[in-house]
This record gives sequence, C-alpha cells and structure tokens, in this order.
Amino acid sequence: MLEKVNLLTAANQTNGLFQYLKIGQINNHMLNVVQVENRTLDFHVHEQSDELFYVIEGQFAIELDDGMIHLEAGDMIVIPKGTRHRPVVTTRVSCLLIEIEGTLNASNTGGSTQTEHRD
Amino acid sequence: MLEKVNLLTAANQTNGLFQYLKIGQINNHMLNVVQVENRTLDFHVHEQSDELFYVIEGQFAIELDDGMIHLEAGDMIVIPKGTRHRPVVTTRVSCLLIEIEGTLNASNTGGSTQTEHRD
Repeated sequence: MLEKVNLLTAANQTNGLFQYLKIGQINNHMLNVVQVENRTLDFHVHEQSDELFYVIEGQFAIELDDGMIHLEAGDMIVIPKGTRHRPVVTTRVSCLLIEIEGTLNASNTGGSTQTEHRD
Repeated sequence: MLEKVNLLTAANQTNGLFQYLKIGQINNHMLNVVQVENRTLDFHVHEQSDELFYVIEGQFAIELDDGMIHLEAGDMIVIPKGTRHRPVVTTRVSCLLIEIEGTLNASNTGGSTQTEHRD
C-alpha cells in the first residue's frame, strides 16, 4: 500500500546536515528533504526547472538580485527557472525541495548531491 | 519581487469550504490550497498526473482499494496516476494539493472547480 511521509520525521532521518533525502516524486519532479545550518550558497540559476522551497522547521532566507526573502516554518516559495538566487542559512532549517529530476548538482547544493533514497 | 506564501494563511483566505485557491505553480504543476469538512468524494482516478496531498492543519483520510491512510498535519502523500482513491473528510482539514494543470475538475473535487487565483 502507499505510504504517507511526515515531513519533519523525514527531515530528522537525513544522514546529518546537507544530506538530501528523497522522500518521493510527483510525475517528473523529485521531493527531497534536507537540513542545513550555517551555509550560504553561491548565486546560481536553474535553467530547466522552477524550484520550490517549503520550510518544515526553522527559518532561512533566499537572496535574489532585488533583495532578501525571509522564510519561516509553514512558508513556501517557488523560484522561477532562470532566476538568480541563493539560500542564506544561519540557524538550522529543515526544508522540502521540489524540482524536476536532475536539477540539483554539487554546484548548487553546497557540495551535496543525492546520496539517499528513502524508498 | 517574488513573494512567499504561508500555507495556513493562504488556506484561511479561501472563500469558504471546498473553494480551491491557486497559490502558485511549479513548472506545469498547480499549487492549490483548500479547506474541506464533512465530505467524502466518489472514488476516482487521475489518468494524466500524480497527485500530492499535504496536510497543513487538521486531518483526513485517503481511501484506496486496499485500505485507508490517515493523514495529519505535516503529513504528505503522493497518489500515483491511475490509482483509484477518494478523500474521506470528517472534521475540517486544510490541504495543499499539487498536480499537473488541468487535472482537477468538478467530478473529482466534490463539485468545486478553480474559482480563485491568488496572483
């Protein structure tokens, strides 16, 4: 039978900080959870996919060319493809990310790549 | 500048029960929030898209051919395309739904269709 996933439980099951855990997929999009702390990524662009961030627990910011957007638990934002952005993380945050499979790589995840599959 | 959306705030901004509010999109997928209470839909299938449910507040169940899955706040599930299912809602629940645009119609939303656009 199909299984539900509790986002916070899944985030706490990652193998430590910066380790993406794939919790499922919807059509051609991946669902990943990750915990991050004290890391600011370089500005980057995803050319092929919008990118959805949902804050499960904690808070962080996304910096765009025209300013900073602060996100707290329960907040969601979609970064349109082609939009320069970078996550700015100080205290620990647990996030859900959704994007087309193949969008994430070492250069836009702070060195992490897909290392775990929950299912 | 891009805007974030707080899911609970958005759910509380819908025009009453069973009214889908589009809060954004990711690639070809729609992001909708809805509040539902005391409604069981007919079994149905989405042939063209997986369907993601995320419980923002409250609880409900999804009935499949092989059983019932109970979901609470913070839980997420993806119903693969082609899978017979129906939501079973008793007490009020606020949900996020994600599916390919064009998937939802009157017959699989309990009579509601897309009536509001937040942006």
